[in-house]
Amino acid sequence: MTTRIVELRRGILKKNDELAAELRHRYHAAGVLVLNLVSSPGTGKTTFLERTLRELRARGAWAAALVGDLETDNDARRLASSGAPVRQINTHGICHLDAEMIGKHLDNWQGVTLDDVDYLFIENVGNLVCPSSYDLGEKIRVALLSVTEGEDKPLKYPTLFNSADAAVITKIDLAAACEFNRDLALRNIREIRPGIRVFETSAKTGAGMEEWLEYLKESRSGNL
Amino acid sequence: MTTRIVELRRGILKKNDELAAELRHRYHAAGVLVLNLVSSPGTGKTTFLERTLRELRARGAWAAALVGDLETDNDARRLASSGAPVRQINTHGICHLDAEMIGKHLDNWQGVTLDDVDYLFIENVGNLVCPSSYDLGEKIRVALLSVTEGEDKPLKYPTLFNSADAAVITKIDLAAACEFNRDLALRNIREIRPGIRVFETSAKTGAGMEEWLEYLKESRSGNL
Repeated sequence: MTTRIVELRRGILKKNDELAAELRHRYHAAGVLVLNLVSSPGTGKTTFLERTLRELRARGAWAAALVGDLETDNDARRLASSGAPVRQINTHGICHLDAEMIGKHLDNWQGVTLDDVDYLFIENVGNLVCPSSYDLGEKIRVALLSVTEGEDKPLKYPTLFNSADAAVITKIDLAAACEFNRDLALRNIREIRPGIRVFETSAKTGAGMEEWLEYLKESRSGNL
Repeated sequence: MTTRIVELRRGILKKNDELAAELRHRYHAAGVLVLNLVSSPGTGKTTFLERTLRELRARGAWAAALVGDLETDNDARRLASSGAPVRQINTHGICHLDAEMIGKHLDNWQGVTLDDVDYLFIENVGNLVCPSSYDLGEKIRVALLSVTEGEDKPLKYPTLFNSADAAVITKIDLAAACEFNRDLALRNIREIRPGIRVFETSAKTGAGMEEWLEYLKESRSGNL
């Protein structure tokens, strides 16, 4: 049975990679920078993204978001309060988003097309394992880690951190209360992914957001 | 392809259920109460479990632990400092423990047999999706949720909370700093799993541990 599973899994991932390549082509043609945000549940992806969307809007950039959850549209409602166009994808038991789900939600998006936006953020299902295998055609995969989670997460979930292009440490306003060991966290991230850009942020206080927004802007210029 | 996947998945889960039933029989015959701890990565399962093991030991009870992670034996080393026998299971990419992995690690446990212990704690891989489908033969499934994670996790990951026998809220020492909405969290837990026992704890300050230990003791008496 194991062999059949491995073969089927390989088939699924191959199909996903083909669809992701098509998406990548669509994103590029539309001139949109696409980011895939992955983390554990509770890291604060939604709060971080909500602030990012607001700040981009204040700077005159156009951003949209797709957000994945097993159930509920809580996150889409929270993100929509930023004024950006947002769509919820409910996976109903699936532990990750895949390229097919993304493709379906890019069509028939009331009034919004990829050509209209500068940035598309995809907030993945909260999970440190499953999303790492599924390419969504994104240019930048962002692994988020909160100061409340423990500094050894990169070592324990190496595939996810190893496939990331940038790392965002969230909730740094809670660092002292959690006795967060910053040096250890940075060392662990860089052990798994040497040279990765790391942003230390608080969506609550705004710390680190300026640097992050600058990175988005530069990445978009380099991308197009 | 989807049909074949569904069939294979059904086959895997059926096989797991059969192995879990055997494990349940072994646990019962040995007079050990087995608990399966599930949560998001970073909820604080290990810290909570470490304190639990220490407190049980101080009360003259015998407890052991199996701990699942994709990589590293960090958690086993942390737990072993409690003096309890602990074994690490590395799943190498698999997002959950299954009954077969548990069965293999119960054999050849240097010097320790199930007959020697009163409690066996299984710390699952940090994941709010995948572990919910895999019965490990446990008597009690415990879903943990930290105050830093957001009150809506039970609604967003209903299968996991719905399959739990007890819920533990962790890190309540950080509740004020996180602006944790206790009433909302309790309401969401109970919406998904009416009547569930909820423990509000801090492994740091010891809050709520007395009640939790009493619950363990009562569950063990009722179990045997």
